[in-house]
This record gives sequence, structure tokens and C-alpha cells, in this order.
Amino acid sequence: MNYKIITYTLGWVLNIEALCLGLPLLCSLLYQDGCASTFLISILLCVFVGTFLCFRAPKNKEMFAKEGFITVALSWLFISIFGSVPFYISGSIPEFHNAFFETVSGFTTTGASILTDVEILPKSILLWRSFTHWIGGMGVLVFVVAVLPLSGGQNFHLIKAESPGPSVNKLVPKVKSTAKILYSIYLGLTFLEFIFLLLGKMNWFEALNISFATAGTGGFGIRNSSLAEYSSYCQSVITIFMLMFGIDFSVYYLIILKKFKGAIRSDEIRTYICIVIVSILLISINCRDLYLSAADNLRTSALQVASIITTTGFASTDFNLWPEFSKTILVILMFIGGCAGSTAGGIKVSRIIILMKTIRKEIKVAAHPKSTHKITMNNRVVEHQTLRATNVFIVSYLVIFMTSLLLISVDNFGFTTNFTAVAATMNNIGPGLDAVGPTQNFALFSPLSKIVLCFNMLIGRLEIFPMLILFSPFTWKK
Amino acid sequence: MNYKIITYTLGWVLNIEALCLGLPLLCSLLYQDGCASTFLISILLCVFVGTFLCFRAPKNKEMFAKEGFITVALSWLFISIFGSVPFYISGSIPEFHNAFFETVSGFTTTGASILTDVEILPKSILLWRSFTHWIGGMGVLVFVVAVLPLSGGQNFHLIKAESPGPSVNKLVPKVKSTAKILYSIYLGLTFLEFIFLLLGKMNWFEALNISFATAGTGGFGIRNSSLAEYSSYCQSVITIFMLMFGIDFSVYYLIILKKFKGAIRSDEIRTYICIVIVSILLISINCRDLYLSAADNLRTSALQVASIITTTGFASTDFNLWPEFSKTILVILMFIGGCAGSTAGGIKVSRIIILMKTIRKEIKVAAHPKSTHKITMNNRVVEHQTLRATNVFIVSYLVIFMTSLLLISVDNFGFTTNFTAVAATMNNIGPGLDAVGPTQNFALFSPLSKIVLCFNMLIGRLEIFPMLILFSPFTWKK
Repeated sequence: MNYKIITYTLGWVLNIEALCLGLPLLCSLLYQDGCASTFLISILLCVFVGTFLCFRAPKNKEMFAKEGFITVALSWLFISIFGSVPFYISGSIPEFHNAFFETVSGFTTTGASILTDVEILPKSILLWRSFTHWIGGMGVLVFVVAVLPLSGGQNFHLIKAESPGPSVNKLVPKVKSTAKILYSIYLGLTFLEFIFLLLGKMNWFEALNISFATAGTGGFGIRNSSLAEYSSYCQSVITIFMLMFGIDFSVYYLIILKKFKGAIRSDEIRTYICIVIVSILLISINCRDLYLSAADNLRTSALQVASIITTTGFASTDFNLWPEFSKTILVILMFIGGCAGSTAGGIKVSRIIILMKTIRKEIKVAAHPKSTHKITMNNRVVEHQTLRATNVFIVSYLVIFMTSLLLISVDNFGFTTNFTAVAATMNNIGPGLDAVGPTQNFALFSPLSKIVLCFNMLIGRLEIFPMLILFSPFTWKK
Repeated sequence: MNYKIITYTLGWVLNIEALCLGLPLLCSLLYQDGCASTFLISILLCVFVGTFLCFRAPKNKEMFAKEGFITVALSWLFISIFGSVPFYISGSIPEFHNAFFETVSGFTTTGASILTDVEILPKSILLWRSFTHWIGGMGVLVFVVAVLPLSGGQNFHLIKAESPGPSVNKLVPKVKSTAKILYSIYLGLTFLEFIFLLLGKMNWFEALNISFATAGTGGFGIRNSSLAEYSSYCQSVITIFMLMFGIDFSVYYLIILKKFKGAIRSDEIRTYICIVIVSILLISINCRDLYLSAADNLRTSALQVASIITTTGFASTDFNLWPEFSKTILVILMFIGGCAGSTAGGIKVSRIIILMKTIRKEIKVAAHPKSTHKITMNNRVVEHQTLRATNVFIVSYLVIFMTSLLLISVDNFGFTTNFTAVAATMNNIGPGLDAVGPTQNFALFSPLSKIVLCFNMLIGRLEIFPMLILFSPFTWKK
């Protein structure tokens, strides 16, 4: 194990976190909300530990898959611990385990909150809370790879361990350039949403917060009612941008390159759009008696479907009061999630497609044993390695899901609460049903359950393996 | 497709069902409960259709995997339709879809009932209800193979399609002899339980019914309170026999052959016993304040764990009132199920072991990419084909589970009710939680939901593929 390259990268991750903390510091100075010293202390802490860790560049820069997984897992734990410092020392969240929960929920773009009243928080704290979504959405290591002078092997293993989806899609041959392109698209789309929200007469502070939370598919709101109080125009803009951030970013790159045919040829995106349209239609038919007008009904259904399938978690209505059929659609969408290569969580549409195709293949083989049949995606044969990884992903997912369900059941809340709490954290959504519904929060759980749910969020965001490998005894055996 | 061999086998299956209907006919004549004509008509109907279908033996006796799957799927549909005739024409269950639900629940050894009061039913109807569990437990085609002069290829594909577990375990080289041995063990163990229950002063009618329902791991009771009214001795006997019927039958064969080492060497059985012991301990600690004495607590916990993991579904207490932790353990046990090669349902312990080992392998490979690692069971390497089948099984299982959950949610019952109703039917258990808890029944569902749940029971009992292949368009394409 090359420990030095791990600590070196960790050091840089903390330095970058210090840089990110500059934004809420600026905001605090601008609004004079009394949190400037909080952010200054947090920045100094990050820089101090960060500089200590990356003081000397290691001679051996070799990084293999194992080191990549461990670096990514540790980086996410580190940024969450250091990121919770402002919440804690400002007194906004007086218990450290709650501050940690809120920060993990932010970076993993979950959006599950333990706060009962967010409107009393200082503005800079609110901005940091939303900004963690934006940082976590595209990934911290992706940013590190984009800006730091790391070599090829390191880059690839870090991106591979942090990127969502069954396989890594390199836009250009160089990983470093890919990371830069991804961050540029991310920044551009976020800015576009910000502008559209300003045009809807939202003030710039709210527009910035909402844009960060949408871009990262996070879902932290800055009002207690989430999105319910915003205008129809703003709700529609957010719905469209949520759906856009749930799409594979390489599609935007193809559009920029004017390769429109390639952009629409993707099996995943077509399936994603189909699922979205069918879900909106089914829910709006099922909920037709709950809303005053058809437009209201359609807008609310669309916002909720977009919010759940992209695992953002915003709400413009208390969907816990919807009929069971609509609620079950939402629960199923929670598991499906967005496209691979987007900022969305969940199992991902591409994995669902691969799994459905394996079932189809098996039936075909049983019916016609002599026929040969390969599983394809976008007209390309899916590699055996990807199939195996997808299967192992699903199985590990189920095992962790069931174990978490059992652990948090000790708190003695109902089955629906527990099931959707685990589903909402592992898929990085935010709200669930019943006691963790959109008008409720996660404060009710015991510290032990909160730690379990924190792990679920990290496991969901990093797609299981980095965390499993970090905590597996095999990794640390020689 | 060799249609003739399919109809020929179906004909024999119906003739055998006619033979089975002789038992309740005898009971009816003995007790003079007025159902003799009901059973006589049912028998004549089976014989009439059965003889018509198998009147002429087909010249081409070839049967491939596809025909095997289709024959098994159709056989189970046929026996369920013809088996529901006595319930319907005796007036015990006045609606045919309810009679069909009860019969499917019987043959698939689920034990989910739509009846609110079973104690008013005629004795012969009760016996037929319990006897369907016994017939379905070991399998109808296994019986056909044991008694009919079919050739080797047919035998193997029928047994393969009907037997539970990831791979078929032939006790002896000849499939026909294997089937005979299995049925002899099954009959022997059932008789043993019958004797033990008689020794506990249970009357012979109740003892026979309970023995049938335990042996098939079915769970239909003949009292409205399920097992709650029986003595501690009888409850303990039933607990032990439930656990025994959840064990791979080849173990009993090894014991008969005095190969004791081989019997205890099985990874599956050791895991099964561990899961049972740990679950009983956890539940009895969690429920310690609910029962008067420690012995009461332990006996009730043990009965409930045995009943759920073996997917029998008997209850001696309303476990819906247990703390959430204990209920969650039961929900997880619902999915695990018994051992492959037993009469129990669920995913099966051996599949769980294989899946856990694939996760372990993947982590090992990620940590040490150069190491080679094979997945083993009972010191033998698990074939690639078995691994693939297990993965496809889990994925199909999840897809069917989610689809069923969505379909029955139209009835607008709560999430816990719907989730556990699907879990209890797909895993062939019987009772779930909330509105389908042990003191409730399945009468509340709409006819559409009942049909969905019937398919879940059949899909669960036949382990998905026969039903999928029967309804897949690929099968019927040339």
C-alpha cells in the first residue's frame, strides 16, 4: 500500500475545502451575520491539517485501484468531518453528530436534514449548506484531478472510484481534460439556472442556493416549506433543471460538439425520459382530485417525479398525503435514480437497463438454447466485467440495505419510516415517507441510527465499493 | 415445441390430482359432512379432462428444458384451477377467484387465506385445504416422475424446473429413484410428526391437518387462532418439525445411509442453523417484557422464527404487536427462506451464501488484483452457470417484487401492508404485517390484486423461470 500518495491527496482535498469555505466567508462579511470568525477558524483548520498532510510530495506516485478506492473513501470522510465544523462552532447545530449528519447529507447530495427550522440560520451557514451539495455533486476528486498535477494512473483510479455508474465514460483520452470539461459544463448549467431564477424575480441569494442544490441534485431548501412558496415559473425552471442534471453530462459535451445524433442515440437517456413521462402521467391521473387545476396537478406531479428520480429531494407538496399508488411510484423512482455520469444518485438507469437485459437474455436462452445472444447498450456489447460489477453492486446494495433497516429498527419507528429512511439516504434523495416525509426531518433518530444513515449516504454516493474496501480486513492484510 | 408431451404429462398430473381428492372424499364419507358429492364431482372432472389429455401416449417423447418449464408452469396452473372446484361447488368459498386464491395459496405452500372463519368449514374441505400443502410441498411433478414411466430427459427437466434452489442435487444417478427416495423421506417425516402430535393428545384429525401443513411448510391452520390454543408440547413439536422440513432432504438421505460426516458438512445447513439461533436470541431479548416467563418467551420466539424462515406461516402470537426490531428480523427472514432441496420457500439460504461470497470475492479482487479466487460451497467450486442463474434470479425477483408492489398499491392500503403482502406471497409464507398480519387475512384485496398475489405465489414456489418462460413471447416464437 502506498500510504504516502493517499495522505498527499487527502492533504490537497482539505486545502481545496479551505478554498471552498472562502465563499461562505465572503457571504458572511457581506451580510455581517456574525459567522466570519466561524469560517475563518474552519479555513485555518483545513489549511493547517491539509498542509501538514501534503507538505512533501511523495517520490513514488504509483496509485493502483486499491489506493484509489481508499483515497476516495477517506477524502469523503475527511471533507465531511471538516465541513461540519462551521455548523458546530457557529452553534447552528449544537451537537457534533448532528452537524456531521447534515454535512454528510450535503456533500453526498442527499438533502436529508436534522433541522426543524432552517429559516433562523445565518445566511452564510445556509450558503455553505447548499454549497456542499454543489461540491459533492460532481465530486471532490474530480476537481482535484482537474486542477492538480497528478499522473495518469492516479487520475484514472480516483475518477473511477468516485464516478457514478457501471463504467467510466471518458469524453476525451486524457482523464484530466475530461475532468475539466465536466466541471465547465457543471458550472455553465448552474449559472444558467441561476440566471433563469433571477429572471423569475427570485433574489440572488435564494437563486444561488437553489441553483447549487439543484445542480448537485441535493435538495436542501432555505425555506421550511422547501419549494412550495415559489412561483409556478420558478418551480417549472427548477423542475427542468433537476431533470437536466439527472442526465449523463457527456450528452452535453456531444451537444457542444454539435454531435446531436450521438446525443439522442443513448439507450439510457431514452429510457430515463420514458420513465419520467410515464410516471408524471400516472401520478397526475392518480392525484387528479387533489389539485384545483390540471396545470397545478401536472406541475406538481412533474416537480415531484423530477425531484425523486434525480434524487434531489425538493418538494412543492406533502406527497406523503398522496394515494398509495403515487407514493409507490415515488418509492420505485427512489431506487432507479438518474443516469450514470450525472450528479444524481440511486441505482442508475443504465444499471437497470443492463439488469433487465440480463433477464431477457436468460429467458431467450432457456427458450432457444442454441441461440447466441450478447447484451448490448448503445449498440455496443456490454463487457463481462461490467455485467459482473453490476450484479455485485445490486447484491451488496441489498445486503447493506437490509442490514441498515435492521439497525435503525431498534429506534422502534414504523416499517414505512425505516424503509424509506434507508431508501432516501442510500439513494441520496432526502425525504422519505411517514415520519421522514417531506414535512418532517431526520432529527427523531438516535445517534446510532444517524451514524448508520450517514454511512448509507456515503455508500450511496460512492456506489458502495470505496467504503466496503476501506472497511474490509482483506484490504489491510499483506 | 413438443406440444403432445406437454399435454400428456398435464393429463397425468390431473389424474393424480383426482387420486389425491380421494382422501377428502374418504374423510367426508367418514364424518358425513355432506361434501361427498362435491369431491365426487371434482374427481370426475379431473379424471375426465385428465384422461382426455393423456389418452394417447405421444410417439416423440423428447422433452427439452423449454418444454420442462412450460409443463411445470401449466401443471401448477391446472392443479390450482381444478383444486379450487371443491371449495367453490361446496359453497365454502362462494366466489371462484377467492377459491382459486385459496388453492394457489395451498399448493404453493403459502398459507395466505381469504377466509375470516375457518372453524365453520366442513372437515373434508379443511382436510383438502391442508392436503394441498402436502402435495405442493414436495412437488407434483416430482411425484409424477416417481410413479410414471417417463424417460430420462423428461424426468430431469421436470425435476429441474420444479425443484427449489440454485442447482439440482441428485441423490442417486437415476432421477426417478431420487424422486422416490425424496417422497419416502417426506412421507416418513410427516408420519413421525403425526405420531408425536398424537402423543401430545391432539385428536387425529387435527394432528393430520397440522402435519400436512407443517410438512409442506404451508401454514393453513384449522383454528382461527392458528397455533395459539395448542399446548406447549405441541407447539414445540411443530417448531422442531418446521425447522426439520426447512432442511435439504438430501441430509436425511445421508443420515439414513449413516454418512453423518457428509450430513453435517453442508455450508447451507450450518448457516441455516446459525441464522435460526441468532434470530431466536435477538427476538427473545427484544421481546423479554412481553411474556410472563422466559420459557414462554423463548418458545414463542422460536416458533415464530421457525415458522417464518421455513416460510410456513403458523403463528402462536400476534407478532404484528412486537417491537419494530423483532418485526424487521422476521421481514428479513421472510426473504432468506429455508434450504434448497427442502419444502421451504424464499430466496433460499444457499443462494444467500453464494451471493455473500460473490461480494467477498469482489472485495478481495479489488484489494489484491493479482490473486485468483474461486467461489466454493461445501468445498466444491460453484459453477459459473449457477452463479449466473443466481444473479438473474435475484434481479428477476426484485423486478417482479417491485411491479407487484405497484400493482397492488392501487387498492390504497398502507406501504407496510403492501410490502409484506408481496413478501409473504412471493416467499410462500402466508401472513405479513399490518392489515395482512397473523390475525388478519387477504380478503380485503380487490380481485385484481388477488390475481397479482396468486402469480406471486406461483412465481415464488416455482422460483420464477417456469412462469416467466410460459408468459414470454420468445418462447412461442419459432
